Amino acid sequence: MSRYLSDHVHLGDDLTSVVILDQTLLPNEAAYLTLREPEEMFEAIQALRVRGAPAIGICAGYCLAALAEQRKDLPPDQFRAELHRLSAYLNSSRPTAVNLSWALNRLGRLAHTMPEAAPAAVAAALREEAIAIHKEDIAMCRAISEHGLTLIKDGDGILTHCNAGPLATSQYGTALGPLLLGTERGMKFRVFADETRPLLQGARLTAYELDKAGVDVTLICDNMASIVMKNGWIDACFVGCDRVAANGDTANKIGTSGVAILAKHYGIPFYVLGPTSTIDLACPDGDHIQIELRDPEEIRSKFYARPMAPAGVKCYDPAFDVTSHDLIAGIVTEKGICRPPYGQSLAALFP
Amino acid sequence: MSRYLSDHVHLGDDLTSVVILDQTLLPNEAAYLTLREPEEMFEAIQALRVRGAPAIGICAGYCLAALAEQRKDLPPDQFRAELHRLSAYLNSSRPTAVNLSWALNRLGRLAHTMPEAAPAAVAAALREEAIAIHKEDIAMCRAISEHGLTLIKDGDGILTHCNAGPLATSQYGTALGPLLLGTERGMKFRVFADETRPLLQGARLTAYELDKAGVDVTLICDNMASIVMKNGWIDACFVGCDRVAANGDTANKIGTSGVAILAKHYGIPFYVLGPTSTIDLACPDGDHIQIELRDPEEIRSKFYARPMAPAGVKCYDPAFDVTSHDLIAGIVTEKGICRPPYGQSLAALFP
Repeated sequence: MSRYLSDHVHLGDDLTSVVILDQTLLPNEAAYLTLREPEEMFEAIQALRVRGAPAIGICAGYCLAALAEQRKDLPPDQFRAELHRLSAYLNSSRPTAVNLSWALNRLGRLAHTMPEAAPAAVAAALREEAIAIHKEDIAMCRAISEHGLTLIKDGDGILTHCNAGPLATSQYGTALGPLLLGTERGMKFRVFADETRPLLQGARLTAYELDKAGVDVTLICDNMASIVMKNGWIDACFVGCDRVAANGDTANKIGTSGVAILAKHYGIPFYVLGPTSTIDLACPDGDHIQIELRDPEEIRSKFYARPMAPAGVKCYDPAFDVTSHDLIAGIVTEKGICRPPYGQSLAALFP
Repeated sequence: MSRYLSDHVHLGDDLTSVVILDQTLLPNEAAYLTLREPEEMFEAIQALRVRGAPAIGICAGYCLAALAEQRKDLPPDQFRAELHRLSAYLNSSRPTAVNLSWALNRLGRLAHTMPEAAPAAVAAALREEAIAIHKEDIAMCRAISEHGLTLIKDGDGILTHCNAGPLATSQYGTALGPLLLGTERGMKFRVFADETRPLLQGARLTAYELDKAGVDVTLICDNMASIVMKNGWIDACFVGCDRVAANGDTANKIGTSGVAILAKHYGIPFYVLGPTSTIDLACPDGDHIQIELRDPEEIRSKFYARPMAPAGVKCYDPAFDVTSHDLIAGIVTEKGICRPPYGQSLAALFP
């Protein structure tokens, strides 16, 4: 795999900056940004220059570590006050992304365990922790990829929706992980990527990274999933997840539930791939998952040279939908593959 | 209904040209094109400046009549050879729409019945026949609308895909006809319009014409049909059709089969609305319907300010898919509503 896909978020060589691939410019430009000021870091996360829950967590960890390194010559009290302020500031860039606060809190707790340490030592420890978060994500994606790869065979056709590849995570990704890992091992897949309206993550990101990795990928509009399945081209569907409820109901990018219903109709297994951190046993089922509504201009005008719908027309723009557990053949985590009934198999992941 | 919606294709005042509303420029511009050369006519149909099976039929009739009028001073043999050549040429502009060949053949047969007539008389007869095709379509849409209106009630939520309104036909349209007719009678519907990638006929045309007609319309991305149905907002799906096989299998805009599968999953009746001229009893089933493949740039770059997918990535871009007859609750024609089994009910339309 080429360096930029597995390393699209990393610490700068000077240790005081973070380098990210600006995903908002893909696929037309692969431009890297060096983030040094807190405001630049905030903006990069808020404007989705880095996106995908795991990737945001990795980025936030590096950002706080870089800011700590910049401030290591401050008096200890001032250094710790700054750390606290900067962590809260970065955390407010996307209030709903759970990995963001998770990573920042992890670094904050670590600093708290070394009350006597000098700022330079704390900064070094935060850097090591940020690297550990990144490495853990790589290992998790690798494990998900290995498990997922047991579900498909050489020559299979796979349909995916949205983007759950390296750009959303670290090396390999989740839903795309088995395809990248299998390709490294000489297997061939025919992947069909839903473009994923309205933000086109499938076209801009999934098609881009699979193509770069040498995977045979065909881009389709979301409404072509049915004919592609009917044509007999699809052996399995692989999608990521944003939140999995205790009964297996899964929130993922808008349109995922439709793909699952089509797959059931055509007798194609539909798999969800994601880390155990997205499983929320406190959430009983999909009815308890809040669906974010986004700006109608995403549908009407975003990306277009001119608006494609009349200005006055209403739009309904949910960011996610919930796929019912009875449409899901398996939920693939780093700890293994959960099968129905999910009430039992998911709970067994957390002994 | 405003004039341009019901009269978006008509013969030029000089009788030697055809005037069409360029639907590729909607909703930002309502610009009319005058088509005089065969190549302009071919291009207008191929490039979807006029689209929708009935509207293509109406347009093709006017085109052949206008070309005949231009050539009425030719020697009779040459005139008839030209007619034959031009009809075949226009007929090759789009492969799937049966109305195109239907209208051209109707004019051709008429010319054939007047072997002794002078070219000018033939041209005049073809013009009258083209006008008759248009008038019949208006009456047909009205009848379809009346029948379709019996399937829904005041306050219903209706989902539609692509565009089967006045712009696709003549006055009222087919799938949108019951909604427009009901609205004229004071009924209220909540209509959800799939934007219909890649050419966005739902956003550009359906949302546009329903909004103009005062119908409560909400635009959604194609992949949001599932959540809208799950939300309980849809009481029926109304779609048009490009070709109906003898067993009820129906070719319509890409994505239609997916909507039908979702509707079945959620227990929502799915109706196809179209004139009997789109029913092709010579075609036994959907496997015998040729699916037009279109330019991948429609997916990659069309309408966008910048391409949204990498230049090298493959795209699969079928213009239509086939909805299996067992997903269709009824096929609404100007002669009434056909119910399963369609092998019998469709055949009964042609006694």
